Amino acid sequence: MNEIASIDWRNVAPLSPDDFEAAIRAVGAERYHDKHVFHQLLHGGKLNRDQVAAWALNRYCYQEAVPRKDAAFMSRVHDRELRREWIHRIHDHDGLDETGGIERWLVLTDALGFSRGYVQSRRGALPATKFAVEAYVRFVVEQPLVVAVASSLTELFAPAIHRERISGMLESYDFVDDHVMAYFKRRLSQAPRDSEFALAYVKNNARTRAEQEACVAAVQFKCNVLWAQLDALHHAYVTPGLIPPGAWRPGDANV
Amino acid sequence: MNEIASIDWRNVAPLSPDDFEAAIRAVGAERYHDKHVFHQLLHGGKLNRDQVAAWALNRYCYQEAVPRKDAAFMSRVHDRELRREWIHRIHDHDGLDETGGIERWLVLTDALGFSRGYVQSRRGALPATKFAVEAYVRFVVEQPLVVAVASSLTELFAPAIHRERISGMLESYDFVDDHVMAYFKRRLSQAPRDSEFALAYVKNNARTRAEQEACVAAVQFKCNVLWAQLDALHHAYVTPGLIPPGAWRPGDANV
Repeated sequence: MNEIASIDWRNVAPLSPDDFEAAIRAVGAERYHDKHVFHQLLHGGKLNRDQVAAWALNRYCYQEAVPRKDAAFMSRVHDRELRREWIHRIHDHDGLDETGGIERWLVLTDALGFSRGYVQSRRGALPATKFAVEAYVRFVVEQPLVVAVASSLTELFAPAIHRERISGMLESYDFVDDHVMAYFKRRLSQAPRDSEFALAYVKNNARTRAEQEACVAAVQFKCNVLWAQLDALHHAYVTPGLIPPGAWRPGDANV
Repeated sequence: MNEIASIDWRNVAPLSPDDFEAAIRAVGAERYHDKHVFHQLLHGGKLNRDQVAAWALNRYCYQEAVPRKDAAFMSRVHDRELRREWIHRIHDHDGLDETGGIERWLVLTDALGFSRGYVQSRRGALPATKFAVEAYVRFVVEQPLVVAVASSLTELFAPAIHRERISGMLESYDFVDDHVMAYFKRRLSQAPRDSEFALAYVKNNARTRAEQEACVAAVQFKCNVLWAQLDALHHAYVTPGLIPPGAWRPGDANV
């Protein structure tokens, strides 16, 4: 968020499109949340059912924030063609003529024993989860448009994690089946379409080195949003396993 | 943040002023961050110098956010007398005719070996810290005014923690002296004045049970903001000690 604040990029030549793309992809190689120990435990079948449930319950808050984030972004876009492209993201999550991604996510939380009312109230989620995802919603309101678009580019790194997750979770957990994993299967085709558009947009619209660096920082910011969610889950439910006041505890009634 | 969402308070009688105050104070007894293991370690002299440094570096972000939070609040206040009262909070942190609280905080980070430029850039702070404190800034913009005021009421619980911190840290750490602890000494007199005003305001202006419950939830929210910061510090620098990418690491050069 302020990582490049100390460098003045104004008189530095812009990166070539290829180097700019490489700088964006390098952020994923270093910081995308597939590197987090919690994901390694999740995909490796090392978590118990309660820990997977905590992940699904909290991650719902991220899913639920994404279409609000996209609406907040669209509220600033005067270019109708860009809005016509971007609105697909809201359809993907909320559903238009068919079931959307949030509904598919709730199939997962159903399988883990939560009522939809409890999940959708978000009252059992970790405060840190909500702080992180709302920071993402605010980011696309407050940053220049091209930087806001760049913050979506973690999707460049998503198909690999989804493939790994689908195979790892199906193999490891008896409460997970193809139906439950439908969300991730669908994202395998949706995420690349979105990220290709966003990458081309960013490459075309970030013209100065300062704008390019702000876009790279936006991808770092978004990686931080994802990483902080896993840190909070890991602290609360794995090691040291200290659940903050008010958050879901395994065994809680009325969930 | 949504903890009372499932109850309809519209036809419930308001609490008496005393019961309302008791409900607010009960939040502190249950959730204020003096109950967090990190504070117990800090005040008990159980942290090493690097861990105390991480705390001071991150907590700077909270200190730095407070006057912005107060300015955001004042931007919505049409009552000039309320603004004339509230502006003292900005003076306390930024300083007016004398040194302010942020400057005193930097005396602490000086003593722990950080340059002021590094601290003020916030680039070594944990992302989770920034997400939490910015959630607080947003809260006072988005919530009804009386609820925004209520979110400041954690100050009711602050003098006890500051007294404990001053004695515990002076006793335990050789890098801490009276000069370094000036911030907390000053807050011993500032916080009660502010919290008395805010408590009276909330008791006078939250008239319905729904408004009262929203104020109690605001104190919970603010406790969550404080607790999440300590969770993140504990996870990164104590147990399990997993520092997220980009955050300060003990031994880093150029800090």
